Amino acid sequence: MMDRKIILASQSPRRKELISKIIPDFEIMVDASEEKTKGGLTPEETVRFLARQKAENIAKKVSDSALIIGADTVVSIDDMIFGKPTDEEDAKRMLRTLSGRQNTVCTGIAIIDTSSGKIACDSVTTNVVFKELTDDEILNYISTGEPMDKAGAYGIQDLGSILVEEIHGDCFNVIGLPLCRLAQMLKTEFDYKIL
Amino acid sequence: MMDRKIILASQSPRRKELISKIIPDFEIMVDASEEKTKGGLTPEETVRFLARQKAENIAKKVSDSALIIGADTVVSIDDMIFGKPTDEEDAKRMLRTLSGRQNTVCTGIAIIDTSSGKIACDSVTTNVVFKELTDDEILNYISTGEPMDKAGAYGIQDLGSILVEEIHGDCFNVIGLPLCRLAQMLKTEFDYKIL
Repeated sequence: MMDRKIILASQSPRRKELISKIIPDFEIMVDASEEKTKGGLTPEETVRFLARQKAENIAKKVSDSALIIGADTVVSIDDMIFGKPTDEEDAKRMLRTLSGRQNTVCTGIAIIDTSSGKIACDSVTTNVVFKELTDDEILNYISTGEPMDKAGAYGIQDLGSILVEEIHGDCFNVIGLPLCRLAQMLKTEFDYKIL
Repeated sequence: MMDRKIILASQSPRRKELISKIIPDFEIMVDASEEKTKGGLTPEETVRFLARQKAENIAKKVSDSALIIGADTVVSIDDMIFGKPTDEEDAKRMLRTLSGRQNTVCTGIAIIDTSSGKIACDSVTTNVVFKELTDDEILNYISTGEPMDKAGAYGIQDLGSILVEEIHGDCFNVIGLPLCRLAQMLKTEFDYKIL
């Protein structure tokens, strides 16, 4: 069943850890070119577009038969899209905005089969409910360094776990890769079965 | 802030991993005596009762100042409570029951301050929506061995991730310890601040 080579087109250590939960053997390939989004897209369209770009950039370089998986995640609230914070002030601004409210995490997945050229794209949305944060909690969280490389300035999988009261949707989506949907796409679109 | 000794009264490797995300230094103490529940309790009452029993069994043995954390988790569906499966047939029965439906994971937390004798108990409930499973998927999942030591015969944190379409509530609760509520109890009841 798990016959073809899987290539993860992402440099995220969290995506690497997530995919290894369900697929023991895979490769990682990363393209140096900066992903560029188009204007006027919704969060769902943005992440699908960027996921596809990441997968296509790698597909160009791969000559043998493989399934290439690209993914991109954004956090949004009130029509604002939050990427990674540029500095600690930016992280503070993001966390103050998220405090006591619900934000939306959206991950796009694109899978390309290099042998057939087939492409499948989808996106998964999870709602994340933050507890009310004090300014002390925000500053102490920032001082751990954890927010700085994370979209939306939080990581639910570590200390950020205590900032999140509940989620509605796929929890792995919040970390960067919705495993259930990924497995379903691999099975139904590419006949690649994990179980 | 993180001044007192923390003792986790649980032998679960998953709870150990979860608590280490938010508290770097803690000890583990386990009592050999079998926990006994009372009849006629709801899942919430059951897990609070067992969590308190675990914490109290350890508190009896600790003479210095410490916060002792006990926890217990059950999975329930249709008023049936699922603990760990007794054998593969039992796991098959559980997974067939969970397929395509929503189950409820409930974790009780009890914290005892050995210096004051104060006890705080609470429970957290998360709803877990399973995708429709084929018999092949159930048998293949059981053959990995993963279900056998898990309440409800699944572990969302590993391969079981691809069985779960979405959750509603705290995702760490599903693994065995709701970190956000635990941190909140430590802060408000015992003035022990993590952030």
